[in-house]
Parts: sequence; C-alpha cells; structure tokens
Amino acid sequence: MNIEIKDAYALIEDRIARHSIYIQGNSITGVDRIPEGFKADKTIDGTNRLVIPGLINAHTHSYMAPMRNIADDMPFMDWLLKGVTPVEDRMTGEDAYWGAMLAIAEMIRCGTTTFNDMQMHIHNTTRAAKETGMRAVICRGLVGDKYDKSDYRIREAFEEMPDGEDTDGRISFRLGPHAPYSAGFDYLRLVADIAKEKGLGIHIHLAESDTEMENLKKEHGLSAIEYADKAGCFEVPCIAAHCVKVSESDIKLMAEKNVSVVTNPASNMKLGNGFAPVPKMMEAGINVCIGTDGAASNNTLNLFHEISLLTLIHKGVNRTPVCIGAEEAMRIATVNGAKALGLHDVGEIKEGYKADLAILNIDTPSMTPRNNMLSSLVYSANGSEVDTTIVNGEILMEGRELKTMDLEKVLYNCNKMMERLCK
Amino acid sequence: MNIEIKDAYALIEDRIARHSIYIQGNSITGVDRIPEGFKADKTIDGTNRLVIPGLINAHTHSYMAPMRNIADDMPFMDWLLKGVTPVEDRMTGEDAYWGAMLAIAEMIRCGTTTFNDMQMHIHNTTRAAKETGMRAVICRGLVGDKYDKSDYRIREAFEEMPDGEDTDGRISFRLGPHAPYSAGFDYLRLVADIAKEKGLGIHIHLAESDTEMENLKKEHGLSAIEYADKAGCFEVPCIAAHCVKVSESDIKLMAEKNVSVVTNPASNMKLGNGFAPVPKMMEAGINVCIGTDGAASNNTLNLFHEISLLTLIHKGVNRTPVCIGAEEAMRIATVNGAKALGLHDVGEIKEGYKADLAILNIDTPSMTPRNNMLSSLVYSANGSEVDTTIVNGEILMEGRELKTMDLEKVLYNCNKMMERLCK
Repeated sequence: MNIEIKDAYALIEDRIARHSIYIQGNSITGVDRIPEGFKADKTIDGTNRLVIPGLINAHTHSYMAPMRNIADDMPFMDWLLKGVTPVEDRMTGEDAYWGAMLAIAEMIRCGTTTFNDMQMHIHNTTRAAKETGMRAVICRGLVGDKYDKSDYRIREAFEEMPDGEDTDGRISFRLGPHAPYSAGFDYLRLVADIAKEKGLGIHIHLAESDTEMENLKKEHGLSAIEYADKAGCFEVPCIAAHCVKVSESDIKLMAEKNVSVVTNPASNMKLGNGFAPVPKMMEAGINVCIGTDGAASNNTLNLFHEISLLTLIHKGVNRTPVCIGAEEAMRIATVNGAKALGLHDVGEIKEGYKADLAILNIDTPSMTPRNNMLSSLVYSANGSEVDTTIVNGEILMEGRELKTMDLEKVLYNCNKMMERLCK
Repeated sequence: MNIEIKDAYALIEDRIARHSIYIQGNSITGVDRIPEGFKADKTIDGTNRLVIPGLINAHTHSYMAPMRNIADDMPFMDWLLKGVTPVEDRMTGEDAYWGAMLAIAEMIRCGTTTFNDMQMHIHNTTRAAKETGMRAVICRGLVGDKYDKSDYRIREAFEEMPDGEDTDGRISFRLGPHAPYSAGFDYLRLVADIAKEKGLGIHIHLAESDTEMENLKKEHGLSAIEYADKAGCFEVPCIAAHCVKVSESDIKLMAEKNVSVVTNPASNMKLGNGFAPVPKMMEAGINVCIGTDGAASNNTLNLFHEISLLTLIHKGVNRTPVCIGAEEAMRIATVNGAKALGLHDVGEIKEGYKADLAILNIDTPSMTPRNNMLSSLVYSANGSEVDTTIVNGEILMEGRELKTMDLEKVLYNCNKMMERLCK
C-alpha cells in the first residue's frame, strides 16, 4: 500500500519540524519529496499529528505479559519462587502465544514497533509476531548447569527458528543464554561458540543484582561482565540487559567489545536493584538502548513510561537537571535500539528505511502548548497519545483501534488463562 | 442528580471488590445498600469498571500548565531566570485562567478530582475551578523580603478570596508563603500570625534544594524546617511541599507539629534535587501525600505517573522491593491528600462522603489480566484508563469526553498564549 503522511510534525535527526512522508510497500521512499509515479492509496492528514520512528523495546519477555501484577511488593526470592515460577512452569505453548499477543497489543498501543524477546516458546511468540505484523527479534532462552556440555537444546532452538522468508525480514533470531547464574561457564562458552559459528547475536542478562555479583566473585573471581567476556559472549554482537552493577573497568571492557547495553529502569527499581550508571556508560561510548523487561517485573510494556523514568531518575541520582536530555532519550529508544539489534534500516525516518512509525495526536492537554515537542515526548506524554502505529508499511493501529488482532479475544483469553494457572 | 454505579470493582478500605455505589446530589449515600426512596437518574454499568476515590494533587501551580516544556534539560538558574520568569512576568490574569483550564483538563482526564494550588492569580484560578466543577484549595502565593512587615498583600489576598457560598464548599482557601528563600523571616511570621488569626492553613515550599539549605544555614543557622517552625508556620495546619533535604530531627519536628508533607518525585528528580526520604517520613508518622508540582518542572499533571514514580524510586533508592507498596501509594494519593487539606469527607468511597470518583476502564491491555487490580493501579496504569470523573456528584468527564469545558478552545487559547508570550 502507498501511504502519504501529509504535512505532519516529524522527528528527524533529533529535530521536530513539518514534513511529508511517503511510504511504498514496506519502506519510506520519500521525505518531503514525492517519489516518482507515487499514487497514494491512503493519505493521513498531519495537521495535528507528530510522527516519530517506532519505539524499540530492546529487552522484554512477551510471554510474561499475563503475569502482570501477580507478585508485587515482596522480596525478590518470593517474587521469583512463589510468584513467577509456579505460573511459568504450568504455562503451555498456547499460553505463551496469548501472552505474546497481549504484550504486542500493549506495545502497539504505545507506539512500539520492534521488540527484542527472550523466552523458551519461540515457536508461539513468532506466530504472534507474524500474525500481528510486529517486528521482532526472537531470542531462545537457554539455561544449563556448570558442567553442561550438551548442545542438544541449542540445536533444538535452531529447529524452532522462525522462517524469515515469509516475514519479509520482520523477524530475526538470536540466542538468549539467560544469565551467568543460570548458564554455567562451559555452557555459556558453548552457546557463544555456536552463535559465532552460525553468525548469530547473543542476548543475555548481566550484572542485574548484588547477589549475582557476589556469587560470581566468590566462585570465579570475576564480575558478570568479565565472566561473559571470558565465555566468549562478546565475540559476537551482544546485547546485555540490565548492567546495573558495573564497575569502571566493566564499562571499559564493554565499550571495547562493542557490547550494546539495554537499560530497564522500572524493573531495576521495582526489584530493588537500583540504578544502572547509564550516563557513565554513554560517556564511555557504549551503545545504550532501553527495554521494559517482562510485565512481571515492571508491570507495563509502555516505553513512554520507561523513557520518562530514564530521563528523570538519572537527574535525581546524579543531582543535576542536565543529564540524559530529551534528544538523547529519543535516540536511546529508537536508533540505538535498532543498532543493538543489527537492524540497519530501522529506527529513523529516512528514505530507504523501513516504514516503522508511531503517529501521535498532539491535540491533547498533555501535549499542549507546543512549546517543545521533543521535550513533550519524554516528559509529558504517557503513550496514550499514539493514534496510529505502522510497522513495515502496514498499519497495525489507527484511531487507537488495533487492526491485526481481535483485542477482545486476547484480553478474554489472558484473563481465563490466569484464572486457570493461578488456581 | 442520582447516579447508580452498578456492580463495579471498587477500591474501598485498601481492598478491591465488587460493589454498587449510590450517589445523591453531591454525596455518596449508599454503598451496597440502596438509599431509601433512591431513584437513579443515571446508571453506570460497572461490569468492566474499577471505581477509585478521585486522586488528590496536593501541590501544583495550575497557571503554569502552558509553560510545559519551555525550559528543560538546563541548569536550575537558567530554567528559572531564562525559562520560567520571563514568561511568568508577562502572564495576565486571563492567561492564568486559561492555564488553570488546561491544568484542570489534564487532571480530570487522569482521574484527579482535587488540586491544591499555589499562585498569585487566585481570582482567575477560582473562576476556572468554579466553571469546571473541580474541587480546589486555592492558596495565594506570597513573597516578601526580610524586613517586610507590611500586611498589605496579605489583606489584599483576603479581598480576592473566593466566595465559598456558591461552590457548595468545593473551593477553599489557604495562604501560600512561597518558601524560606522568598519570604523573609519577619514576613513569614506575619503570614503565620494572620493565618492563625483567620483560622487558615498554610501551604509552603520547604527544603527543596541544597542551595536553599546552605543559605539558611549560613544566614540563620537553621534548617528550612526549623526556620518555618520558628516563624510559626506549624502553629496552623501546614502543608509542606518537597521536603527533600530533611534530617532525622527535621522529620521528628514535622511529625510532632502534624505537618503534612507533599512529595513531588518527578519535579525533585527533574530539577536535580534528588529523592525525598518518604519512607522515613512515613515511619515517623508524618502524613505524606503527593503532588505533581507545576507543569514547568514535571512536565505533566498526571498523578498516575507520579504514583508510579513514588512506588518505584524508593525501592531503587533503598535497594529493596518492599518499600511503599500499592496500598500505601493509593492512600497517599487519596485519603492522605484529603487529610492534609482538611477535607474531612473526601478521599474515600464511603457513605456520607462527597462523590469524588474516578472510574477506570479495565478492559485494556495494561489492566489485563486482573491478577491484582490494586497493583495494576500503581504499576501498570498510565492514567488513560480513566473513563469517567465525578466531582461533588457532578460528571466532569464521561467516555473520556470533558463535560464542563470546551477542550478545543482551551488548547487553542493556550497555544496562542504561548506564541504571544514567547515572542
């Protein structure tokens, strides 16, 4: 379909100004320049609209969306062992599918167009992403004990790998060794070797909590970052989630090895882990992007909320109003995420790039007056301003109505699922 | 009008369960019990609805709503002197009216039913609150230098005092000496004396920044809390906004003097002041409530955002997932706010209480599944779930449509105003 977004405000190269955007098939083929022979099948009036690159949720667990609010305000081990694990263990692949559908619904409604997912049910999550038209990087969660040298599960993961052919490249694949405390050293080394052999990236949790750090220090004499490096995780494109407990030398190491860090402000605070040193990591040249983590530890997949946290908490922690400004925050949530995921034509509004866009209604109290729309995106918006979401040239939401899923059915099935699983 | 809210989920005494609520005139006259002779003029189907006490924004500056995003990501003095002050100085009373209308629109849309306002244009703010049906405590901002012993401005404030008669008690009045650094000691003493004489409460900014504390220490050898106490501010019902820089003995003093503290998490982070020790203040028995501060330092008046910050940041700062839980947060945003403002029949869903309610649509992805609706209010909601807002028995919003103001006109006038003021 050919779409014309006519005379809208648009965020291009850190600045918001009036632009017209032309979409053909899955791509942006013109910005302020009508492509040759272009005939619009659909025109979106941009008068009261602000177009931004679709947001990129660089770390989540979509199947956990139905676990939202099952275990809050309790110590971490209770959260994990009494709250999350019993439900997780009883979840079927079909449950994971409906969980992913719920997650995708929430993300589309808040302007997210790509998510980087870690879980065990890649078949079902891929199905949800395929059906709804979302862009996704699907990472097979992998856990193994210290002396595990079997590549059985890893090979199995490849059999479940989604077929890229029929998704127009929308869905790609990585390996997701869970964390240093759940993937023993030899196993992690094995995963890293196979990732290298297959030319795949790695998505891993690193340096999330003090307990993780203390145990690694005791057992291996290493920090989480050093441990992952030694196991070879940084020899392939690596996305490290959390990185709350990192030292100066950890930061230096990650910068040298081109590791991308996903910060998860809500999750890190909610579980009592604290604040990742994001400004320091950025100063060192690390590519920092942002994620919501799973809904059990956030408990929303709304990236506008996460962006707002990102810009506020580091000003608070560092006692300065000049720290992670609006421009930087929007880059973190778009272009940096695309870079981390190796999506070279995603994350910007640019000719030749994929048409992944969120279009906001700016005739709302929160976005008025139009003093500084870039600021309003990070400090004033709550995500509900998103009117239209486009992925790969396809309209997934318009007038806040989801176009590629039956939302009522998704909500019904998720409510029923949890009634069953929590019995 | 008689309103029946039929079989909805409702938050009553820290628990959410199915209830029916009956409203007659300005009050709740029945909970699960049809009042004698009650005939509903309007029935709201509660099937997919969650009713909560209307939220109380215990510290804001409504006239500043049009200054949203005019001065972000800059040092505090630039924010104040280059950003806010030049616009503020040029604002007319009429501008303040439209500012208050914008603030009220945003608050109603996010389920806020009462706001505690500090500003100079009380006439115009009162007009906005009267017209829209909001509940408001209007506090006349007062500044005076060290040796100022003239009560001229204070007396003038009384002339501008809104007439309570025709607002059914919806609008009340306090004195708002700005802060220790803008109201010299003698002046503050004078304000406190007059407040005492007239039986009025005080609303003041205290202990917001390090600069404030250092200067008070140098000039008076006192902390901000000690300074306000010595000036007599605590001899009347006192609401102290911010209280970021408070010591153990300051906390003890405030607890003894029954001072209510309004915490403003977003503003304190955004301006680089840090985090108020809210858990310590609550432990000491202080009545803590919550506010958004003005839109120039937040930059939204959405209390759902603020509540979420409150519950997350203190877990992060104190490195524990068990700190300011969902129940506590909802009390802070409702009943504690009412207590601080001396509104004895507001802030709870209870027979005989004023009908100030927010009704949320819970058939949204963010509120699904219904694992723990109390948690979902603080960790998952973003405010856009509010479908209906009722103040004093009057429906101010239904189906997200504002009923007592012309929103389009408000947005238009605020955009035009800022084009003029920022020229």
